[in-house]
Amino acid sequence: MAPPDNLPALAVPAREIPVPTSVSPQARAVLAMGPMDMGEYPAQNDADAWRAMIKAADDAVLSMLLAQASGLPSDVQEIDVAGVRIYTIRPQDLPADDRRVFLDVHGGALVMGGGECCRLTGAGTAARVGATVWAVDYRMPPDHPYPAALDDCVAAYRALLEDHRPDEIIVGGASAGGNLAAALILRARDEGLPLPAAAVLNTPEVDLTESGDTFQTNLGVDTVLTRSAMPASLLYAAGHDLADPYLSPLFGDLSKGFPPTLLASGTRDLLLSNTVRMHRALRKAGVPADLHVLEAAPHAAFFGTAPEDGELDREVRRFVDAHWGTLA
Amino acid sequence: MAPPDNLPALAVPAREIPVPTSVSPQARAVLAMGPMDMGEYPAQNDADAWRAMIKAADDAVLSMLLAQASGLPSDVQEIDVAGVRIYTIRPQDLPADDRRVFLDVHGGALVMGGGECCRLTGAGTAARVGATVWAVDYRMPPDHPYPAALDDCVAAYRALLEDHRPDEIIVGGASAGGNLAAALILRARDEGLPLPAAAVLNTPEVDLTESGDTFQTNLGVDTVLTRSAMPASLLYAAGHDLADPYLSPLFGDLSKGFPPTLLASGTRDLLLSNTVRMHRALRKAGVPADLHVLEAAPHAAFFGTAPEDGELDREVRRFVDAHWGTLA
Repeated sequence: MAPPDNLPALAVPAREIPVPTSVSPQARAVLAMGPMDMGEYPAQNDADAWRAMIKAADDAVLSMLLAQASGLPSDVQEIDVAGVRIYTIRPQDLPADDRRVFLDVHGGALVMGGGECCRLTGAGTAARVGATVWAVDYRMPPDHPYPAALDDCVAAYRALLEDHRPDEIIVGGASAGGNLAAALILRARDEGLPLPAAAVLNTPEVDLTESGDTFQTNLGVDTVLTRSAMPASLLYAAGHDLADPYLSPLFGDLSKGFPPTLLASGTRDLLLSNTVRMHRALRKAGVPADLHVLEAAPHAAFFGTAPEDGELDREVRRFVDAHWGTLA
Repeated sequence: MAPPDNLPALAVPAREIPVPTSVSPQARAVLAMGPMDMGEYPAQNDADAWRAMIKAADDAVLSMLLAQASGLPSDVQEIDVAGVRIYTIRPQDLPADDRRVFLDVHGGALVMGGGECCRLTGAGTAARVGATVWAVDYRMPPDHPYPAALDDCVAAYRALLEDHRPDEIIVGGASAGGNLAAALILRARDEGLPLPAAAVLNTPEVDLTESGDTFQTNLGVDTVLTRSAMPASLLYAAGHDLADPYLSPLFGDLSKGFPPTLLASGTRDLLLSNTVRMHRALRKAGVPADLHVLEAAPHAAFFGTAPEDGELDREVRRFVDAHWGTLA
């Protein structure tokens, strides 16, 4: 059954959507803040404007990350791996022989979230997974477009493999970090590397073409991700095909060795379609993949302030423990 | 952190939502049909108007069910169990000693979907699960409000237990059928009955109070379920508390023996919140529960016409086979 050409769009009238009573008071408070003003992306060729925008956005995120920074004592080091800066974050209560590593890829639309944001994101991940984290401070536009970021993630993974069994390693990330974590797995596989034990993809930006339905249906409903990331994706791609599987891993061949994967999103998330499509694609490829969707949650949920965030943290912990479980 | 009173609603402007390219041509054709005109529900006390509305709706659904009726040869019998009409549907290719039974509870907002609709729904389920189906033609309003329907489902389950081990039985249903399937499990548990091997809850109407966020965010976006079912729920409840766990099993105690459960919905589904909240509630209660969400799918997906429907069917088959698997 071929659909007719020029399929008619669905007209949805203007609406007033109340703050739901179906979530925690903390989540309600986040939803009541209304849409975040993310401003406009700069013109593609205005590198200085991009640098200024990125710094302003990172500063804003940094103050939020500092406010929720984990009190978990950990040893943090900054190391250089083949020219890539990596923060290693090791919780102090780990036994000396604990060799588990979570390779953590930060988010930020593939242009933001580096440096201190990356380090603090990694610290949060270490608290969440209870293991050593390698947080990759990968290179980004405007100075370093694709494939710099992916090269750096692959270099970090390759370095880890030098003294870790692959099943001691789990990779993951949120949003753009989910893009790079998935792309890293595809490239490692294509380069003949052994694959990690598992992957954690939280609201992953796995389709830079933004073809998913919730890019439309949840636009204006997601109060955190309030605009398309297309300008950032184009700056990242720098002329490469956005649908290339290394840029949009949703379109990759997931049938050959992709590891068990946990995916998470929220019903208001602009990237809900990305998440459920990746879940379906993995399941079709025969990959064990678990989906969690938080009620009324916007992109990346409730800033870590709500019990719902903690509930997802516990799912992630249970998942990684199960996949690291055979290593004890 | 207590939220302030009078939380401000989110103003979402009017939008034109294109038919997404991220689904099959068949799914696109369904989405291009636009919102179904479901008309108005009658006044609560106008029983004749309800009967007329129910007949018209059932006739419309029946023609659709007949169009997609499975060609699977099966032996169908109509039996009477403690006054409850049940259609037993046994695929002809089953070995004589195959004792697996799927107790199938039809949908229809707790007021529609009985009789021939029930039988054809059950036939579809039999094809899907590859086992004998008991399709319960439970009593409904306006003549038989709560607890008649639930009484009938419990009576059917109790009758099955007379000559089946509980782990030979799986229960399930879509929409209102998901409500009754879950409520049946809670009541069976409370009455001291052994529980079935598993449950399949497809876009379940587990919260008759309609407190979930997608009752708002997906209103007008879901082209199949285009209105609140509250009038039907009130007719069903007949003065009982809509939040009672036997009417809204989402609010029940799920921690004591609820069996492994598969849940499914779509990103456009008005009952997406119901589905993900039930998934979360089950997971919090320690119940193994798997969630599947179809891209861009409205309530109950694509009328069985799209490959996406078949994909979900295969997930259901895999799930029931895994939970019946130990019985061979």
